[in-house]
Amino acid sequence: MSAVPSVAILMGSDSDLPVMADVARVLEELAVTYDIRVLSAHRSPEQAVEFARTAEEKGYHVIVAGAGGAAHLAGVLAAHTLLPVIGVPLSSSPLAGFDALLSTVQMPPGIPVATVGVGPMGARNAGWLAATILARSDGSVRARLAAARERMTADVLRKSEALPGRLRELLDGKR
Amino acid sequence: MSAVPSVAILMGSDSDLPVMADVARVLEELAVTYDIRVLSAHRSPEQAVEFARTAEEKGYHVIVAGAGGAAHLAGVLAAHTLLPVIGVPLSSSPLAGFDALLSTVQMPPGIPVATVGVGPMGARNAGWLAATILARSDGSVRARLAAARERMTADVLRKSEALPGRLRELLDGKR
Amino acid sequence: MSAVPSVAILMGSDSDLPVMADVARVLEELAVTYDIRVLSAHRSPEQAVEFARTAEEKGYHVIVAGAGGAAHLAGVLAAHTLLPVIGVPLSSSPLAGFDALLSTVQMPPGIPVATVGVGPMGARNAGWLAATILARSDGSVRARLAAARERMTADVLRKSEALPGRLRELLDGKR
Amino acid sequence: MSAVPSVAILMGSDSDLPVMADVARVLEELAVTYDIRVLSAHRSPEQAVEFARTAEEKGYHVIVAGAGGAAHLAGVLAAHTLLPVIGVPLSSSPLAGFDALLSTVQMPPGIPVATVGVGPMGARNAGWLAATILARSDGSVRARLAAARERMTADVLRKSEALPGRLRELLDGKR
Amino acid sequence: MSAVPSVAILMGSDSDLPVMADVARVLEELAVTYDIRVLSAHRSPEQAVEFARTAEEKGYHVIVAGAGGAAHLAGVLAAHTLLPVIGVPLSSSPLAGFDALLSTVQMPPGIPVATVGVGPMGARNAGWLAATILARSDGSVRARLAAARERMTADVLRKSEALPGRLRELLDGKR
Amino acid sequence: MSAVPSVAILMGSDSDLPVMADVARVLEELAVTYDIRVLSAHRSPEQAVEFARTAEEKGYHVIVAGAGGAAHLAGVLAAHTLLPVIGVPLSSSPLAGFDALLSTVQMPPGIPVATVGVGPMGARNAGWLAATILARSDGSVRARLAAARERMTADVLRKSEALPGRLRELLDGKR
Amino acid sequence: MSAVPSVAILMGSDSDLPVMADVARVLEELAVTYDIRVLSAHRSPEQAVEFARTAEEKGYHVIVAGAGGAAHLAGVLAAHTLLPVIGVPLSSSPLAGFDALLSTVQMPPGIPVATVGVGPMGARNAGWLAATILARSDGSVRARLAAARERMTADVLRKSEALPGRLRELLDGKR
Amino acid sequence: MSAVPSVAILMGSDSDLPVMADVARVLEELAVTYDIRVLSAHRSPEQAVEFARTAEEKGYHVIVAGAGGAAHLAGVLAAHTLLPVIGVPLSSSPLAGFDALLSTVQMPPGIPVATVGVGPMGARNAGWLAATILARSDGSVRARLAAARERMTADVLRKSEALPGRLRELLDGKR
Repeated sequence: MSAVPSVAILMGSDSDLPVMADVARVLEELAVTYDIRVLSAHRSPEQAVEFARTAEEKGYHVIVAGAGGAAHLAGVLAAHTLLPVIGVPLSSSPLAGFDALLSTVQMPPGIPVATVGVGPMGARNAGWLAATILARSDGSVRARLAAARERMTADVLRKSEALPGRLRELLDGKR
Repeated sequence: MSAVPSVAILMGSDSDLPVMADVARVLEELAVTYDIRVLSAHRSPEQAVEFARTAEEKGYHVIVAGAGGAAHLAGVLAAHTLLPVIGVPLSSSPLAGFDALLSTVQMPPGIPVATVGVGPMGARNAGWLAATILARSDGSVRARLAAARERMTADVLRKSEALPGRLRELLDGKR
Repeated sequence: MSAVPSVAILMGSDSDLPVMADVARVLEELAVTYDIRVLSAHRSPEQAVEFARTAEEKGYHVIVAGAGGAAHLAGVLAAHTLLPVIGVPLSSSPLAGFDALLSTVQMPPGIPVATVGVGPMGARNAGWLAATILARSDGSVRARLAAARERMTADVLRKSEALPGRLRELLDGKR
Repeated sequence: MSAVPSVAILMGSDSDLPVMADVARVLEELAVTYDIRVLSAHRSPEQAVEFARTAEEKGYHVIVAGAGGAAHLAGVLAAHTLLPVIGVPLSSSPLAGFDALLSTVQMPPGIPVATVGVGPMGARNAGWLAATILARSDGSVRARLAAARERMTADVLRKSEALPGRLRELLDGKR
Repeated sequence: MSAVPSVAILMGSDSDLPVMADVARVLEELAVTYDIRVLSAHRSPEQAVEFARTAEEKGYHVIVAGAGGAAHLAGVLAAHTLLPVIGVPLSSSPLAGFDALLSTVQMPPGIPVATVGVGPMGARNAGWLAATILARSDGSVRARLAAARERMTADVLRKSEALPGRLRELLDGKR
Repeated sequence: MSAVPSVAILMGSDSDLPVMADVARVLEELAVTYDIRVLSAHRSPEQAVEFARTAEEKGYHVIVAGAGGAAHLAGVLAAHTLLPVIGVPLSSSPLAGFDALLSTVQMPPGIPVATVGVGPMGARNAGWLAATILARSDGSVRARLAAARERMTADVLRKSEALPGRLRELLDGKR
Repeated sequence: MSAVPSVAILMGSDSDLPVMADVARVLEELAVTYDIRVLSAHRSPEQAVEFARTAEEKGYHVIVAGAGGAAHLAGVLAAHTLLPVIGVPLSSSPLAGFDALLSTVQMPPGIPVATVGVGPMGARNAGWLAATILARSDGSVRARLAAARERMTADVLRKSEALPGRLRELLDGKR
Repeated sequence: MSAVPSVAILMGSDSDLPVMADVARVLEELAVTYDIRVLSAHRSPEQAVEFARTAEEKGYHVIVAGAGGAAHLAGVLAAHTLLPVIGVPLSSSPLAGFDALLSTVQMPPGIPVATVGVGPMGARNAGWLAATILARSDGSVRARLAAARERMTADVLRKSEALPGRLRELLDGKR
């Protein structure tokens, strides 16, 4: 991997790591470099602002920010940078992630956050979306993305073939 | 009114003024000083941060912040001040204010926003809540608050007396 | 601790204690005095009304009230006192706290409830918000609040440094 | 009408009259006596409590209470009386009545509110439900209820017969 | 118990019994007679209709109907009887009871269902509400209801006194 | 058209006609025969049950039922017939159709309702879905369906071509 | 079973099998032939489109498609076939199936999806609904459907008889 | 404008144009080239698939897709291209855009859609987000984006200065 990571993975609390690790998993599969840190829009606001202000000149190309509840992190970062910011709404309150989703996606005109789905599904897609953006100017990322898509399709087809057998076991086993 | 206002009324967009004017209406009724401005957490983020950082030393006692959609304004201000911050969720997107409510109230531990109801009802209550806080150290605000409460009760009772007559007109008029 | 507590922590049912204990935890961290009791707006309504009516003269400065379902407690108390009332919506029905949140925050004009988030996150913020209000007239609370905020930021930064190591373990462990 | 009304129709604000008038309409159709007043759980709380405490001895048999937003009125009344209390959730905030519905129906065990639908539909049903309860001990109310139900069915059948003609006009008119 | 039960407790599926048993618990505490059965609006529709049509003449005074999902049972029964019908929305689908609540409460004008809260809390309140209706014409039910309310209040006060001790244990135990 | 209609279009209230007329519009476009009536699950329950019980022997092949609020009509009909029943949730309460959607779709196992979208969009799709079912045994319906689909695609393409011109007018007109 | 299955059961991911197996269970009970496979609208889009395009000529009569999250599978298949498509919204994200329900049911005019309830309840109903459609042209399916309905009613009645005994045990056991 | 547009703006129906025109407005302000068309995932599915398959080789860099209801367009396009796809959920059903939001954002892992807010606010942000992505490899887009951000901030500050005057008029005018 190169010395300058392409993607910054940020999260509002270190308790978000088990879900946000999925962003890293996808990026490693695609050989995209990244680093990762905790930055809270509310509890370390100056560091968050400072990070966003300098991220582009440091060489990052995409920022991924995951947060739960009143999830302001992605929006606050987006206000201080011209880099694309991907927001991952996390389900960490009793309200099942509806709060994080609406806090992340409903940004005012001019300061968009590219929002993905709630929870682990969204974390993985943040990785895939970052790669899609990087692929615009990096042919090798594009190639690995294309290959990964093909593996994905093959995986669906393989699982499909095994399905009737699994169903038979399930139906017989329960009777 | 005194030269140093007690309450800062902030809003994320000048299109919020018709609703946020209700904060000012209540404060004027209670003779509480205030000033008012537009400050966007996203479109003028540095000014918003700067305002919050210096608000206490300038002499403000309470901040009221209204915003719609992914309403980050109150939370971002609260991250940069020790003053009480009251958040007014506004209904300015198709999602009826559910987005602004959840974005305002679901703050992470340590950085609370004192949230009131969605829309005009909430804007008025932001004024009443600010006065309740000021009344803790200002007996004259407390006295005016007590008097306003009594007028409120009297108003309910007066309207109650007129109700049977209004009902009769309504029922007869429609038949 | 002094003999006269500053904050009254109330809850609608003793089954709410495990969550509402977090209010006390935060207040103890900030050396703010409090006492705690069960008061139901519905099952002990006269006691609830009586408590609210006399709370100010007894010397309380802030009331914190937690309730689930049709959470009327904070609103009913606010109707009988000029003290600031902080409402904590609890998630104790199948509806995940949406019921308690809306029942607490959507108060009619004139009788505000300073609402915080749903569940444990909100309980902790009720403590922080109470301290923010008390800090307006008590410099020592303000000083402890400022110090606690700094610890909070330091804690985020410390956790951020440990994050890459934890991620590596997580990714390697699962492969 | 008799001198002692059977049903008390209460509402949290006189602005609720246009909807709550439908309760009266239904009761008049069924010749059930009622009176009507404004009583706010929050703005005239002592009067509300006093009303509930004395309603049974004054001779009321059923209380109907309509309120919007954080609709506490029905629940607060129910806490102070053994009479059946019917709650009508009103749609008077941007949140479309979800707030009033949940605030009315999700009562804690022991203090039930018989909740009907949101808005005008619910207001009418509060009248019908009150009559159903009164009919348990008043045969003449029961008889008028039975007759009204038959008129209702006949009305549906009559409208059904007119439907094909109306449809034809609609389809032809628009082409 | 008397030979003719006052209340019919019905449920859409026998899997609802653990929750609906709470209706019976409350009625037994108040010495109100009842019987109980499974009747599905959809899977045994003719029996459901037949039950509702004849319930009044058989001597029942109140019907309690619990159902989950598209909870039609209470409404279908209400369409075939003049007895008061109490609906208990059950949380038996992934949608947490929102489906059952809305299916039960939003009845069209003329056919009300007295709706209580979702789940066990609502099941208990169905018992309390039934007693409130029966108390209108049965002084002994009224007396037992009044006594139960007083026990309820005493219970809250007793638990309140034990609370500070429990909190201390909780806070100390966790540190 | 033949003398025996294939589809029965039913609605819970004649006020639903403007929306439910769209079912008829689509069926006429596909030359599928139908008739139309008002049948309320609640206000004319015996007629509704009778209709469902005899619909198959009368020669209907599909039932379409539209209702708003606690929309029980489709489910109640489905309980009394083996014909496919299509439910159209209507938006006729303040709750925007969420109530009708959940009341229609969340049926218990064994008694399915084929649910389409809320409001006019759903009404039209009820017509299309009915035709899809009829097409299984009626080749001429299938042929008209196939032709209609092709017109639909052609219509999209034609509108697409006109779009840039319309956009230019819109952008220029507003500046 | 015959060589040409009547129903195609499809699912967006093989992790949906435990729920979607219930479709197969119902079809086997009714002796309706089916086959089953994984087909993702997003991860194997070409295979999904190809399947839909050729399903009718291969001899299928009904397609059942289950998916969670942004559940596009049923809608995408419906766009490429004239067969009736039944959509089963699955609860596989933190949003409890609200996402899958709305993604499945709110189809644009012309391309209906016959939507059933969320989760296992819906999966079973997809089987029943498919049989209802097949019964239109296959008398033996209709006969088995009629018999199954009768067993269902008998089952409710049998369970109803056992209920009082089970309640007694429950109440006694807990005291 | 150059001959090869950078952004493809697509919408599911030409009735979406008034909202989707805002994407074009933003792109014109930033001098980003685009073209625009109607493509329905359901009513012109083959054209939609074909467009997505060939978009990258034709030279597009970003796809923006707006749709309402069960909004599948963005997801279906994303399944057939490696270009970044931005989804705009439109509020065109009675369900206020909750349906379109969830249908767009909750994509399965591997096929992300970069989702922006509901309605006009989101349409504008789709333009801004597209520019942010293009700016990664086009310095002139980046420069115009930076300038536009500065104008935005200046606009907020200018409006803020005018606010006190507007408030005074509003308060005086209404008294």
